[in-house]
Amino acid sequence: MTRQTAGPPALLGLPSGPEELRDIAAGDLPGLAIRIRRFLVDAVLRTGGHLGPNLGVVELTIALHRVFDTAHDRVLFDTGHQAYVHKVLTGRWDRFDTLRQAGGLSGYPDPAESEHDLMRNSHASTALSYADGLATALRLRGDTRHVVAVVGDGALTGGMAWEALNNLAAAPDRPLVIVLNDNGRSYAPTVGAIADHLGALRARAFDDERGDPWPGFFGILRLSYLGPVDGHDTAAVEHALRQAKASGRTVVVHCVTTKGKGHPPAENDEADCQHAVNPRRTPARAGRSWTQEFAEEIVALGARNPDVVCLTAAMLRPTGLHPFARRFPHRVFDVGLAEQHAVTAAAGLAMGGLHPVVAVYSTFLTRAFDQVLMDVALHGLPVTFVLDRAGITGPDGASHHGMWDACVLPAVPGIRIAEPRDPARLRELLQECLTQDTGPTVLRFPKGRAGPDLEAIGQVGGVDLLRADPSATVLLVAVGGRAEACLRAADLVAESGIAVTVADPRWTTPLPEVLGELAARHRLTVTVEDNAGTGGFGQRLAHLLSRRNHPPRLRTLALPTEFLPHGERPDLLHRHHLDATGIAETVRHHVFREDTMTNPQQPTHHHPGG
Amino acid sequence: MTRQTAGPPALLGLPSGPEELRDIAAGDLPGLAIRIRRFLVDAVLRTGGHLGPNLGVVELTIALHRVFDTAHDRVLFDTGHQAYVHKVLTGRWDRFDTLRQAGGLSGYPDPAESEHDLMRNSHASTALSYADGLATALRLRGDTRHVVAVVGDGALTGGMAWEALNNLAAAPDRPLVIVLNDNGRSYAPTVGAIADHLGALRARAFDDERGDPWPGFFGILRLSYLGPVDGHDTAAVEHALRQAKASGRTVVVHCVTTKGKGHPPAENDEADCQHAVNPRRTPARAGRSWTQEFAEEIVALGARNPDVVCLTAAMLRPTGLHPFARRFPHRVFDVGLAEQHAVTAAAGLAMGGLHPVVAVYSTFLTRAFDQVLMDVALHGLPVTFVLDRAGITGPDGASHHGMWDACVLPAVPGIRIAEPRDPARLRELLQECLTQDTGPTVLRFPKGRAGPDLEAIGQVGGVDLLRADPSATVLLVAVGGRAEACLRAADLVAESGIAVTVADPRWTTPLPEVLGELAARHRLTVTVEDNAGTGGFGQRLAHLLSRRNHPPRLRTLALPTEFLPHGERPDLLHRHHLDATGIAETVRHHVFREDTMTNPQQPTHHHPGG
Repeated sequence: MTRQTAGPPALLGLPSGPEELRDIAAGDLPGLAIRIRRFLVDAVLRTGGHLGPNLGVVELTIALHRVFDTAHDRVLFDTGHQAYVHKVLTGRWDRFDTLRQAGGLSGYPDPAESEHDLMRNSHASTALSYADGLATALRLRGDTRHVVAVVGDGALTGGMAWEALNNLAAAPDRPLVIVLNDNGRSYAPTVGAIADHLGALRARAFDDERGDPWPGFFGILRLSYLGPVDGHDTAAVEHALRQAKASGRTVVVHCVTTKGKGHPPAENDEADCQHAVNPRRTPARAGRSWTQEFAEEIVALGARNPDVVCLTAAMLRPTGLHPFARRFPHRVFDVGLAEQHAVTAAAGLAMGGLHPVVAVYSTFLTRAFDQVLMDVALHGLPVTFVLDRAGITGPDGASHHGMWDACVLPAVPGIRIAEPRDPARLRELLQECLTQDTGPTVLRFPKGRAGPDLEAIGQVGGVDLLRADPSATVLLVAVGGRAEACLRAADLVAESGIAVTVADPRWTTPLPEVLGELAARHRLTVTVEDNAGTGGFGQRLAHLLSRRNHPPRLRTLALPTEFLPHGERPDLLHRHHLDATGIAETVRHHVFREDTMTNPQQPTHHHPGG
Repeated sequence: MTRQTAGPPALLGLPSGPEELRDIAAGDLPGLAIRIRRFLVDAVLRTGGHLGPNLGVVELTIALHRVFDTAHDRVLFDTGHQAYVHKVLTGRWDRFDTLRQAGGLSGYPDPAESEHDLMRNSHASTALSYADGLATALRLRGDTRHVVAVVGDGALTGGMAWEALNNLAAAPDRPLVIVLNDNGRSYAPTVGAIADHLGALRARAFDDERGDPWPGFFGILRLSYLGPVDGHDTAAVEHALRQAKASGRTVVVHCVTTKGKGHPPAENDEADCQHAVNPRRTPARAGRSWTQEFAEEIVALGARNPDVVCLTAAMLRPTGLHPFARRFPHRVFDVGLAEQHAVTAAAGLAMGGLHPVVAVYSTFLTRAFDQVLMDVALHGLPVTFVLDRAGITGPDGASHHGMWDACVLPAVPGIRIAEPRDPARLRELLQECLTQDTGPTVLRFPKGRAGPDLEAIGQVGGVDLLRADPSATVLLVAVGGRAEACLRAADLVAESGIAVTVADPRWTTPLPEVLGELAARHRLTVTVEDNAGTGGFGQRLAHLLSRRNHPPRLRTLALPTEFLPHGERPDLLHRHHLDATGIAETVRHHVFREDTMTNPQQPTHHHPGG
């Protein structure tokens, strides 16, 4: 039995914090694990969030908190979505009704939220590198605290983890515990040699307590190895962690866990063990997602062109490649959490005469920027990058918003970036990408519903005109999925007597030169893009316009170059004036500002503008 | 004896091409190796270039060309500076007097130069990923050619190589030969567990020909292993390669070589085995290099502040960290060819209360963009990146010009980028970087001589004024090392009666707001920066100026967003108008253009400008 204290945690049968947890008798821990699972299933099914990974680490996290003091020792969770149990046990159980909502509990560790958290980044395979640096710093400063990194087996497919292990081995005499949470999966089943090797290790009996360095992968790395340990046996994990802690060395504690453990719908979910679930309250959204549109079109294009092959970095389903994989199983490659390899293997496939499509979330392509630049573009190879979740994503927060690809990719020589405004353009532009045979192409689109098709009423220099009026004084340039909001904004400002042209460049890199002409024919140009502004479309248009001797007036709407918190996508777009009302307000504000200017010919008159 | 054919190769005792090489009797090969080494030493000491690595692969490359047909089979050289012997043997011996010179032979493989070359990228650890893709493509297309990747042991410290090996193991039944050129070094001695493991493998006798999979690292990866082979015994290497070729599987052929082999000054060079040598004809340059200035100052700052620690990715000497390492051996960390780990380990060190300095060439930091963004900046950690060789480098060509960091780093929230114009500013700005305690800072400077100190005559809003004139009509904004050229350009245009203000922003990110005011007080602003223009300083200034209701006129001088060939740095700067005469011409051209405009009030008048 959990010690009964006053207040809600006791009602739930949860300890109020790590100290109380450490007082619980070992025999009462299985009961606690059941209550934590019940709490998680109930809470996460209501709010949505990462369910499967957290159900798998209940006992492991209980043991961690009984052996280490996370307010003092430094515990790092790789790919932080496995930290819910840690949050429950560090006094944050009462905020789970706000999970992943604006202003609410983050779905990842967050140092701003708790002294028990160290890092916010949820990109995989980084924790061992942090741990190496942190343990080194503590040693140099004479600080004897322990460093613990909790790492999934999937994260070991990422090259960074290898770089870190190679370095950790150089100083194996530091107190550093690597908890290998081995559930045989990342999002998808773990691939490659490391997965098989861990499988062989798992096959060893759990009761084998020799604890001697096993002459396998970790032995070669000169890292002490303990395990395999049944990750759902709290006492066994606790025992191994205490051994590792006492050794004063770098030790891998290999815990075998089951993703989704204890919740049959998750354990039996063949797709992804309920890796992440949607909130119950979400109404079924009308219409199809951008991902679904891509999923369907890539199958059609693959059927027409046998040279089309697809790659994914452990995200076959989330990127919509599973129908392609079913239809063309030999033409799809899951490389693991290894974006660098995905990009350069694609370069190799292109060298071999194929047209590879690398489907990845926007936020992860920046992990392979150098490979896009030096391996694909330098060789003028036809590789198409399909960037899903480009722009604001929502509940996953700062490290998942797809805000950065559009800032950095335009600097890649010869790259062509397409941003579809609707399903019809997604299909057209994907086809156009696949017919480019020199250099990389990119198709980027946001998370969520793709909306209705928005037909053009004309085209000039490759730019679609969605709305035109001979008397228009304002040019709205809508990048990709922002077109619908721009058209609605045009309707709103029409009520104030402002006539607007709405243009969609379709290809945002290279920047269509005709935009200079179009801007010069209007009194004000406003660009709207769903990514950080630095290096983005508006900034590049500003540069194009600056080359004119009398640059047309320009205002650029984009996300600020800041890390944005989690929240709902519509709310975040609204906050940054990227929805119809925000765009309309911006247009009105700047049109009227100009009209009230007293001395438009004076160049030193300072108007910082919007 | 080499078969004597007509023409110069016969005079040198070199075969005219691979076909003739394959006809040479085995007994004559050691003599050929001696002649090739003699040729290389003579040629490379004259032109400058990578000597040590190529002296180490003479026999290995001879054997490669006797077993594989590189015009047909697909042979990839990782970190391509080890391809000189390959060039000699594929009919390019006659162009070695032009090595690394403008229009001359590239120092790396180049598909534009020869059908025997496949890739130009010289960033390490990529070849195995290419090979995976290429072998997959060939298999899918029913093409039975062999794929061979030549990889150094140093490259195995890079995470990409691990990602590739993990994937190669998933399909070990493809004909793919991995030639592991193990000389125990990259630029510096190879570090970490993998180095020790290869050392253990090397210790096995060369005459052990069992050829069975060794149960070590490669065994765990399920890759067949042959070796170790004496990499200077052509017959032994040839034998192993034929075995590997015949197996039809993925096989690692472990060749043990000596960097600098056969040339005592290289073999005995403890620093780097004459990794790269300067051309004999180069006169001793007056003055100290930027690297030397940094090397000295970081020691001084390290002495003052015990929290300063330094990291390098296998480039202790080239980045100038060796005096720091001598003085503070426990405060410097060489992580191997592992930029990602370097950046995130630095984040860990900063989390532990230290101030890490990551010293790396500009061209390599883009390998860790995501880590700068998500691991350092997202956590507001004080890590300083010292980017040497920023801007045009010269003879190493497209994959070594430091053109891209300045395009992508400004998009990192909270980052501060400093670009010193002279040695005094390098010292000042490095100090300022080390006092920043929130978020990443960057100090970028070019290759070569740092030049004289250029004192400011005033300062406004953090911007140094290097030349001012109340009647100035032109504002020249000099980024970093371009200041000297801008001052000379100002002198040149003064002769045409054009008065110029020269300003140095010192910190280029965030963009000093005062530049908007300064620009508005001049009739023309010209920015000068030594990096690709997209996302660069000028583009960001154009955006700042566009926010004014009457944007001042702006022309931006930068490198084009293209891959630039190898050549001398001054020549390449000249070609892109980034030297004094080019800057002066640009100023004159645009000042006079405005003066001849007939209708400056007409906004639709089209002037594409510079």
